Amino acid sequence: MKSDIEIAQSIELKPITDIVEQVGITFDDIELYGKYKAKLSFDKINAVKDQEPGKLVLVTAINPTPAGEGKSTMSIGLADALNKIGKKTMIALREPSLGPVMGIKGGAAGGGYAQVLPMEDINLHFTGDMHAITTANNALSALIDNHIQQGNELGIDQRRIIWKRVVDLNDRALRQVIIGLGSPVNGIPREDGFDITVASEIMAILCLATDIKDLKERLSNIVVAYRYDRTPVYVRDLEVEGALTLILKDAIKPNLVQTIYGTPALVHGGPFANIAHGCNSVLATSTALRLADYTITEAGFGADLGAEKFLDIKTPNLPKTPDAVVIVATLRALKMHGGVAKTDLSEENVEAVKAGFANLKRHVENVRKFGLPAVVAINEFVADTEAEIATLKELCAEIGVPVELASVWANGADGGVDLAKAVVEAVENGGADYKRLYSDDDSIEEKVSKIVTQIYGGRSVIFGPKAQTQLKQFATFGWDKLPVCMAKTQYSFSDNPALLGAPEEFDITIREFVPKTGAGFIVALTGDVMTMPGLPKKPAALNMDVAEDGTAIGLF
Amino acid sequence: MKSDIEIAQSIELKPITDIVEQVGITFDDIELYGKYKAKLSFDKINAVKDQEPGKLVLVTAINPTPAGEGKSTMSIGLADALNKIGKKTMIALREPSLGPVMGIKGGAAGGGYAQVLPMEDINLHFTGDMHAITTANNALSALIDNHIQQGNELGIDQRRIIWKRVVDLNDRALRQVIIGLGSPVNGIPREDGFDITVASEIMAILCLATDIKDLKERLSNIVVAYRYDRTPVYVRDLEVEGALTLILKDAIKPNLVQTIYGTPALVHGGPFANIAHGCNSVLATSTALRLADYTITEAGFGADLGAEKFLDIKTPNLPKTPDAVVIVATLRALKMHGGVAKTDLSEENVEAVKAGFANLKRHVENVRKFGLPAVVAINEFVADTEAEIATLKELCAEIGVPVELASVWANGADGGVDLAKAVVEAVENGGADYKRLYSDDDSIEEKVSKIVTQIYGGRSVIFGPKAQTQLKQFATFGWDKLPVCMAKTQYSFSDNPALLGAPEEFDITIREFVPKTGAGFIVALTGDVMTMPGLPKKPAALNMDVAEDGTAIGLF
Repeated sequence: MKSDIEIAQSIELKPITDIVEQVGITFDDIELYGKYKAKLSFDKINAVKDQEPGKLVLVTAINPTPAGEGKSTMSIGLADALNKIGKKTMIALREPSLGPVMGIKGGAAGGGYAQVLPMEDINLHFTGDMHAITTANNALSALIDNHIQQGNELGIDQRRIIWKRVVDLNDRALRQVIIGLGSPVNGIPREDGFDITVASEIMAILCLATDIKDLKERLSNIVVAYRYDRTPVYVRDLEVEGALTLILKDAIKPNLVQTIYGTPALVHGGPFANIAHGCNSVLATSTALRLADYTITEAGFGADLGAEKFLDIKTPNLPKTPDAVVIVATLRALKMHGGVAKTDLSEENVEAVKAGFANLKRHVENVRKFGLPAVVAINEFVADTEAEIATLKELCAEIGVPVELASVWANGADGGVDLAKAVVEAVENGGADYKRLYSDDDSIEEKVSKIVTQIYGGRSVIFGPKAQTQLKQFATFGWDKLPVCMAKTQYSFSDNPALLGAPEEFDITIREFVPKTGAGFIVALTGDVMTMPGLPKKPAALNMDVAEDGTAIGLF
Repeated sequence: MKSDIEIAQSIELKPITDIVEQVGITFDDIELYGKYKAKLSFDKINAVKDQEPGKLVLVTAINPTPAGEGKSTMSIGLADALNKIGKKTMIALREPSLGPVMGIKGGAAGGGYAQVLPMEDINLHFTGDMHAITTANNALSALIDNHIQQGNELGIDQRRIIWKRVVDLNDRALRQVIIGLGSPVNGIPREDGFDITVASEIMAILCLATDIKDLKERLSNIVVAYRYDRTPVYVRDLEVEGALTLILKDAIKPNLVQTIYGTPALVHGGPFANIAHGCNSVLATSTALRLADYTITEAGFGADLGAEKFLDIKTPNLPKTPDAVVIVATLRALKMHGGVAKTDLSEENVEAVKAGFANLKRHVENVRKFGLPAVVAINEFVADTEAEIATLKELCAEIGVPVELASVWANGADGGVDLAKAVVEAVENGGADYKRLYSDDDSIEEKVSKIVTQIYGGRSVIFGPKAQTQLKQFATFGWDKLPVCMAKTQYSFSDNPALLGAPEEFDITIREFVPKTGAGFIVALTGDVMTMPGLPKKPAALNMDVAEDGTAIGLF
């Protein structure tokens, strides 16, 4: 069986100029990065601003398990299949972070015969967006420390600097550090830490900004620290939002690439799905909507985190609301949710499918709470049995949700045609009538409470002492009208990763809030969130190489 | 008077495809990065490998002073002028680091009417080379710490890890840090520090590598640490040279841009001129030589550091040796070398010119020791008086060195025609007969001694106790056949920055050596070398901005 990179390298790519022609983009509308990648110009983005947006399909998933769901692969395959059945379709996906690529996760450009290409470039530096974000983030850090070193006119309390540095790597040794050591000329010794770049608020901002002006406005609103009197210090107080915007002026332009089947894809931005909203950029999704009849986009983790944030945080920034939501599942993962151990997943187990269906069912119901039609996509595996498949189809029929098997990993566009047809039907007849879960005017407590009770299926929310203090503070700073971004384990509806399926009667404890006033949301922490991964015992890097002719080896 | 960025933005750029046509590069030979930047493919680099190289002109300078010399500006103007008088000329220059751009120094794309364009891009992310180097450097750090965390099979002594992390920013707070704090899962607490990216050995390697294979070989030879038994740990012991090469596979390709006058320029690589060799990439210079009749390149700091390293370290990696060396000076700087304070430089002072000439004279003599003809280029300033100019011309005539005034900053190509003619004459009649100062077989002591006595004009070299111990160790590791890279102040021939002019009877103390076995040289430290700059009270970043249409503001 061919590996992802072998499949990718066996494909003869078309020049990106040829690919984008089919959605009305010409050579003058783009900036090439090599022959197969390009950035879309603001001239073109602005030129199509008044065009009627096409249909929007969100791809999300059940709660992830080690068995895997294949959300990106399914998004790509679905788009290829839609094009195959005659719908002019574009993809709007997230771009990968280099850290996991060098570590254990591998890339994030899909898999098998459902990939965006050139996967090597997309998984490495791509068009430099991550590097620009890293640089802007760390330039801000250097400017904060320099401000203190040069007299601290703003009265920043160096014990209360909340802006951390970042690297786009998995580097556990940088999680907690002391900086400014050695001499007075090296600044003030203080505690600091590094997050991975995708956890930077600047990544979230880049993905929500609608243009350069909005980008600068959001950057200026970042809270970096507190003064000795506990009032917040914003980027605008440091007067460096212009410099940060300058560093990001190209990174904000959406990137154009192609799938194996020549579907034009916008791959742009990729914030964390816990401490951030986990969706690709608003600019990419909005532009795809105006260029294509169908736009396929995805959201991070399971639907409880990704889809909820897509619908409550991202959607209000889009020119239109979604027309349908595809929920990806595998029979293997459903069996895990039904109590089967990872080692036993290859054995047929109809009862476990029934039990695990509870997880999928709650996600379907949740999608409907947002007023949207759901379609279930089963990512097919060879070990799936007919009895299991039949059971799942019956269960779906009982709750009236369309379900289709898809084998896009193995069969590309052909493997997604049934799903594509079901999605078109849902879009055209589904009567989407989007309703946001909460309104901006709800208090932060109300917002959290609605998410926990209506989406997670929990009983109630407990706000810890620190969180309660913050709720009062945030109201005085005027931050209480912002949406809430939940930081919760992706493995369970609850805050306990071991509770698979559809747990009930649980409470969620909010330990602390983190203001992301630049991005425009308040993060609610339900537990420790890892914002800097580590490398495994045998990092993927050990197998990477490059041939003398420049061909990449060992990416996956 | 227009600022550099105003001049740059007033120029209508030609597509880079049009620019490179004049040196035989076609659309298929390049990877575009937007319309005005490109990377040259290895296919093209290899295709021209057997072509007869053209003439090579090195641009260097007297010891720098706060008055400035304008070496990059002169290099660009000279190339434009050579093209104007009918010589097919290319430029091979270093690329700027973002740190100083955000700090105080501003960009490094020339100035006035002698600039490489688009200066905004070149000064910001350009084609991502710096970011790739930062990433490769820090991936190596993460892999080292991870190796220790996962059991430390190689027996790395964590007190003796010499590989530091980098950021491409001026960030004094990161000079000295403690990492790995907080918990056993965060690794082992240890001292570390961040250099600026251009100080990374990987930058030096990228600039000396002749192809992908050589790049990987050099990366594998980096010493990152010592074991408890004091034996060196190389990158090849960690088995990650493949991954590092993969991260650098595009960064190693030379970048093509244009000057204001449409001269094709390769702007690629930019290592420090103290702890590294301070020259643009071998690949860029070599390729320019094969494509053009004349190649203009430069070396960092004054000729004592930059030209010596160009001639002893870089030249052996080039397909040909230089045909002439241009030494840039200003009357203002000569007057400073002659004892005038910075505040008094606008007053005529013929005696100071005479006294300061000693600095220029020694550099001319040094160039001749390498068997090369020198040409003096006076970067013209409005305050220069006729008497001062006449005096300098007389002094140059006395030692038989051609001298020309050039006003390329104000007048572009026209301002460099006289200089260009003098350079052509020196190249065609100068009878260059390159001799390296030392041979690889000389001991490290001999190499240092030859540089100090023959180039710096010093009396002798004192090796401190640590340096002496290292000399013995390095011989047992087989490192004593490598060239020496001096880390000395750029302001004086001596190791005392206050000794301007042409000091004599001084000794140089070598405190310590640093092995750069990947780059392939041993750094000799004569004092503290700053490898991480800080930001000033009012960083340039405070004036930076970007217009709503994406136009950069406040770069210089």
